[in-house]
Amino acid sequence: MNINAFQDSYPNDLAHCYGCGSLNEHGHQIKSYWEGDETVCRFTPKPYHTAIPGYVYGGLIASLIDCHSTGTAAAAMFRKENRPMDSLPPFRFLTASLKVDYFKPTPIDSVLELRAKVLEIKGRKVVVEVNLFAENVKCAHGEVVTVQMPDDLKV
Amino acid sequence: MNINAFQDSYPNDLAHCYGCGSLNEHGHQIKSYWEGDETVCRFTPKPYHTAIPGYVYGGLIASLIDCHSTGTAAAAMFRKENRPMDSLPPFRFLTASLKVDYFKPTPIDSVLELRAKVLEIKGRKVVVEVNLFAENVKCAHGEVVTVQMPDDLKV
Repeated sequence: MNINAFQDSYPNDLAHCYGCGSLNEHGHQIKSYWEGDETVCRFTPKPYHTAIPGYVYGGLIASLIDCHSTGTAAAAMFRKENRPMDSLPPFRFLTASLKVDYFKPTPIDSVLELRAKVLEIKGRKVVVEVNLFAENVKCAHGEVVTVQMPDDLKV
Repeated sequence: MNINAFQDSYPNDLAHCYGCGSLNEHGHQIKSYWEGDETVCRFTPKPYHTAIPGYVYGGLIASLIDCHSTGTAAAAMFRKENRPMDSLPPFRFLTASLKVDYFKPTPIDSVLELRAKVLEIKGRKVVVEVNLFAENVKCAHGEVVTVQMPDDLKV
């Protein structure tokens, strides 16, 4: 089990994402970890991440689901190859599609817990399912199709 | 044709959303307008809204699609009732589900244009389709199921 967050192993040139890049000082800087066969990310919204007062806005939920899924996809590929996440070459995934179902308003004064599972790995594609909880209540569900970043996009 | 943005007509107690509330000083404060039977929102990303350097992160795209769609849903209901958006009672929509397909990386140094159409109005539900363009190239597509906010959530 890797005690570092997935995102802490991203190479510096891929660590600028607003959602998950450790080098983006304006961003969310989410941290994701293995817990058994699930991956977990806990995030505390800021008071201004609101939709209607008291509740989290849906765009934040979508963002967290998105970036936790791309991190999970990378972690799953490293695990499949039985090598640590800071080994080379790196895996980095982009989102091809994102589907979020909002079951109920998500209270903003709580720690959001995202728990993800890998549904499918096929070639360069990894499909991830995420449930988002607030105060142990499932508030949203996401399914994310990620694809390994094409070489010609590397920066 | 209403020359004010949809969001400028939201009542103050519903104008705090990070994506679209005119009273959220930290937020995106998007503005949406009718153009014929489509609604349009133009948004300039900040440099830090990045995924990998040079491109917009997917969470921002999801957020813009989300809030432009709830605004479009409200506008469509007012139009259906043939009354201005600042008339009472207000319509305010929440997102039940959000599906975004990312076709290609979205360049960050451009004005993003979101163009939406109402696919269906049925009771309290409005389904909205959104295409997102950068430099006239379609980079993402969204389909959003919105529902009218329940009375017991009113703040």
